Amino acid sequence: MHVIVHGGAGGTPDEPDLRQATLDRAAETGATQSTPLDAVEEAVKVLESNERFNAGVGGAVQSDGVVRTDAGVMTSDREAGAVASMPGVEHAVSAARVVAEETPHVFVVGDHAVDLAADYGVETGVDLFTEESRERWADSDAPDGSPSEHLQWLRERFGGHDTVGAVAGDGETFAAATSTGGRWFALAGRVGDVPQLGSGFYCAPAGGASATGAGEDIAKATLSRRAVRHLEDGMDAQAAADRAMAEFGELTGSEAGLIVLDDDGAGSAFNTDGMQTSVSTR
Amino acid sequence: MHVIVHGGAGGTPDEPDLRQATLDRAAETGATQSTPLDAVEEAVKVLESNERFNAGVGGAVQSDGVVRTDAGVMTSDREAGAVASMPGVEHAVSAARVVAEETPHVFVVGDHAVDLAADYGVETGVDLFTEESRERWADSDAPDGSPSEHLQWLRERFGGHDTVGAVAGDGETFAAATSTGGRWFALAGRVGDVPQLGSGFYCAPAGGASATGAGEDIAKATLSRRAVRHLEDGMDAQAAADRAMAEFGELTGSEAGLIVLDDDGAGSAFNTDGMQTSVSTR
Repeated sequence: MHVIVHGGAGGTPDEPDLRQATLDRAAETGATQSTPLDAVEEAVKVLESNERFNAGVGGAVQSDGVVRTDAGVMTSDREAGAVASMPGVEHAVSAARVVAEETPHVFVVGDHAVDLAADYGVETGVDLFTEESRERWADSDAPDGSPSEHLQWLRERFGGHDTVGAVAGDGETFAAATSTGGRWFALAGRVGDVPQLGSGFYCAPAGGASATGAGEDIAKATLSRRAVRHLEDGMDAQAAADRAMAEFGELTGSEAGLIVLDDDGAGSAFNTDGMQTSVSTR
Repeated sequence: MHVIVHGGAGGTPDEPDLRQATLDRAAETGATQSTPLDAVEEAVKVLESNERFNAGVGGAVQSDGVVRTDAGVMTSDREAGAVASMPGVEHAVSAARVVAEETPHVFVVGDHAVDLAADYGVETGVDLFTEESRERWADSDAPDGSPSEHLQWLRERFGGHDTVGAVAGDGETFAAATSTGGRWFALAGRVGDVPQLGSGFYCAPAGGASATGAGEDIAKATLSRRAVRHLEDGMDAQAAADRAMAEFGELTGSEAGLIVLDDDGAGSAFNTDGMQTSVSTR
């Protein structure tokens, strides 16, 4: 099994070594699994449970004071599942897998996604706040009131990005997964690129991709689909990542990062100050 | 202004002439507007208000007995907005436009999207049932109970498709919009391709596209983005629609339809029994 994981594209983190150790553990955990789908789920779960990453516990807080998680997963057989806007679900990637495996759908949102996940054994009702996110939220002086009042407040604050993701391949098939707590100070109910097929994640027989960064812009550029198309056109994973990121930069002028895996190996690219990744092969 | 609209790809409708007259009126209404964004919004609103189309009033009923609407809109300047899983919103396309114009986001879901729409003057709390959909739902013998019980019930029933959409261009810029009540007998909270950028709709300087059909499969193939990429590669609108639909058929073996508009005119393609469209130019 060949696995690459990322912990989000962004600024220079406070404790890069501790983050890197967790990413290494996530990649290694993925590499011991028996299928690419198991590999990306288990790798992402390691990152969702670690509060240094904006996914699961430690996710961003929306304008009504609630942490909501989104995730998507897809295999090269084009099985796909995604979930969004779920309060209290640490392992959003597992909820996305429930959508892929247990429903005829590819996307379920909100409390219905939470109920579905719970019905198939995914833990819900989890406190996704950390000490740090609770303090940051308490200091943010968020308004009560209508969506337009929230928007006025968040317009100067909305931003940041950090997402986790993994792509795995076993020489025959691939899987890709992405999971996030979203961006800080987003309007309640906001959903970014992560659960949108072709934007936050994509997978095809040629390989898979997982994106991170300014989600609104990633969706406008369908960044993950773009990278996989470059694989389909014959590029290797690194060239596909570089080309997709160059196109993204030209189209949007915005910030993102991308991991890509094909039969010959892994590639990654980003236009932020940093994006930590880890690769493991067994 | 040049406008093309569709009323969904599917079987042979009961009253094709009445549907065609409404589609013609939608296209003509769009063609009298002053911007492509106004054109697609006003054209789609005509179709959302007509109960013969599965969007707005007359939308499909989800497994908990609620009609929820989804929509997306995008311009060639890559302004984009989408909404999903909204109870009681007839003009989902207008709610999507609120996301595009009033927020730094591209996608807002659930009750939060309803509240946002209401705050910017979109009517909410609308009864989206028609006599026909109320009867069909009453006859469907839906279970109470957990999501897994709903899934067992809907597995044999889920399907059908019908969506409305429009693409407009004024010689300088384009806009595309898609709106739907989803597919019949979907799990509560299910969202399809319609609000996903690149799947149900996409727009770029080369032109725009709006898709309809089996939404899960459209999302797996990112069908609208696929058509616009073919425009970017130099195909005309009809060739781009044909090529994207051929690829979709090969990839998924599923059913869909597509309208495409570029500077030289409109194209459409579908692999179902029928897809009604209308074109208007002023």
